[in-house]
Amino acid sequence: MAVYTEITDAQLAAFIAAYEIGELLSCKGIAEGSENSNYLIRTSSGQFILTLYEKRVLRADLPYFLDLMEHLAGKGIACPLPVKGRDGRALHEIARRPAAVITFLEGVCTSRPLPHHCAEIGKALALLHRAGLDFPKSRENSQSLPEWRRLYATNRQNADKVAKGLADVLGQELNFLGEHWPADLPCGVIHGDLFPDNVFFIGEKLSGLIDFYFACNDLLAYDIAICLNAWCFEPDGAFNITKARTLLAGYRSVRSLTDAELGHLPILARGASLRFLLTRLHDWLNPVKGAIVKAKDPLEYLTRLRFHQGISNPSAYGLSK
Amino acid sequence: MAVYTEITDAQLAAFIAAYEIGELLSCKGIAEGSENSNYLIRTSSGQFILTLYEKRVLRADLPYFLDLMEHLAGKGIACPLPVKGRDGRALHEIARRPAAVITFLEGVCTSRPLPHHCAEIGKALALLHRAGLDFPKSRENSQSLPEWRRLYATNRQNADKVAKGLADVLGQELNFLGEHWPADLPCGVIHGDLFPDNVFFIGEKLSGLIDFYFACNDLLAYDIAICLNAWCFEPDGAFNITKARTLLAGYRSVRSLTDAELGHLPILARGASLRFLLTRLHDWLNPVKGAIVKAKDPLEYLTRLRFHQGISNPSAYGLSK
Repeated sequence: MAVYTEITDAQLAAFIAAYEIGELLSCKGIAEGSENSNYLIRTSSGQFILTLYEKRVLRADLPYFLDLMEHLAGKGIACPLPVKGRDGRALHEIARRPAAVITFLEGVCTSRPLPHHCAEIGKALALLHRAGLDFPKSRENSQSLPEWRRLYATNRQNADKVAKGLADVLGQELNFLGEHWPADLPCGVIHGDLFPDNVFFIGEKLSGLIDFYFACNDLLAYDIAICLNAWCFEPDGAFNITKARTLLAGYRSVRSLTDAELGHLPILARGASLRFLLTRLHDWLNPVKGAIVKAKDPLEYLTRLRFHQGISNPSAYGLSK
Repeated sequence: MAVYTEITDAQLAAFIAAYEIGELLSCKGIAEGSENSNYLIRTSSGQFILTLYEKRVLRADLPYFLDLMEHLAGKGIACPLPVKGRDGRALHEIARRPAAVITFLEGVCTSRPLPHHCAEIGKALALLHRAGLDFPKSRENSQSLPEWRRLYATNRQNADKVAKGLADVLGQELNFLGEHWPADLPCGVIHGDLFPDNVFFIGEKLSGLIDFYFACNDLLAYDIAICLNAWCFEPDGAFNITKARTLLAGYRSVRSLTDAELGHLPILARGASLRFLLTRLHDWLNPVKGAIVKAKDPLEYLTRLRFHQGISNPSAYGLSK
């Protein structure tokens, strides 16, 4: 949850006046998004999210994120649409932070994904990948191998405080992935962080995808691997092949996967596990003083990593091929 | 800000089904209220606040608070109206907490009260006092002299860590108030915590009063004294007599104050200062582990207390008599 920056009513009034969204009727800081401050605002013309970009998001990246949302929304993806101010720009400033107003999406996150949610996620991810194909901007993935190596170097000395032998596991996995990471799979815009708290449902139907602030250009199948990690494991750490099967089938009902993509799923899934294991480990070992966000347990991703390490054939993910 | 209890979508769906408020469309934990967990929910029939009562609110007191809101709303006070479930009851349960759905009020809190806000507050407070006169239930003020003595006893040994000599100031003030606290002023329902973050405005007009969880039966003029403390001091600690004048004039435009009430304003204001000084001191010295709420500076209220101690004639509050 997050409201890192408090805003005054005077700041808010001045900010809102720069948009053609009517009179401000309410504004509530909301517990959503872990990187930015988010306010749910209501005006005489509707409901919106006001996001203040905090220091973990690079200002230079914001046009990519905002333009991407506009591009995807224009193609019918249920993602927030940045609202432009009277000056025609989506990026403004409040309380000395870059800030944007985006449309509000209805729906509720699921805290316990079921197979039908996974089917929807697979389909939505493929639609997103397809809609992103002609997005003209590009952004490198800031959370890939070089960053993993940096996080490892920063935290290796303390990693064993979290789990005995963890530093070795991380070092060996980094070496393995460095040698085997695929380079020539289909690329495009990926969401990069499509966890259950970034997906809304109304009833059983997916109603929205949010939080595009890790979006970048990378291997499309890596985004699937992230979702396999995020959606297809049970709270006790067990892999749920039914969920994976529906997720992959949902995806493939929209976009077919190449043999190379299918064959690389296990290694991509290892990479995705390592990515979240490392970032969580870093947040765990380096808690921000006064942070509102509770650090998540890194070891959930050690369990996932070990599962993927044991897979030699992608059929273990429920692929019917 | 506060979301102390996370709720799952399944818990939420079951909870909402007990009400006739339509299909759930969204639910956001909001940074509002420091004692309870609050969610802003949207259903096909409108917008509501779902409050989960955490341990600082006594379950036995909840019927008083909920019935009071219903009573006041019925008299036209702009306060939340508890929504009754299909079973006719306003008090339900979610995630093992007592919980209620109340109507959503539009408006924005002011972070920098101006005299026109204070005029509105004075008027709204008097209207609330008038509307509460025939409320049949009664609740003792849990934040009065006996509680102040208890807080003093708990924290006197560490008080000087916050400010040198503070323990003595507190002890002497408690003795003074114990001897001089008035007993025979007009009584009724008081809000007890009408700070700027519990009051909404749309433009210059007051649109809502919230957070009735300190409401109780006590001296009506003590509620005014709380508002003088909460609304009429500048960030630098200076008393703003213009704000006090408009607040009192606003109040008296609805309900006249007796000579005894006017004459006791300085001592009531001292009591109100001491009340918040002591509770803030306690929260400061006894931080809850993992608390999301940042403890507020107790010394703001030492400054206010000293101001009121220096007042012998209530005309210093801008009373025109």
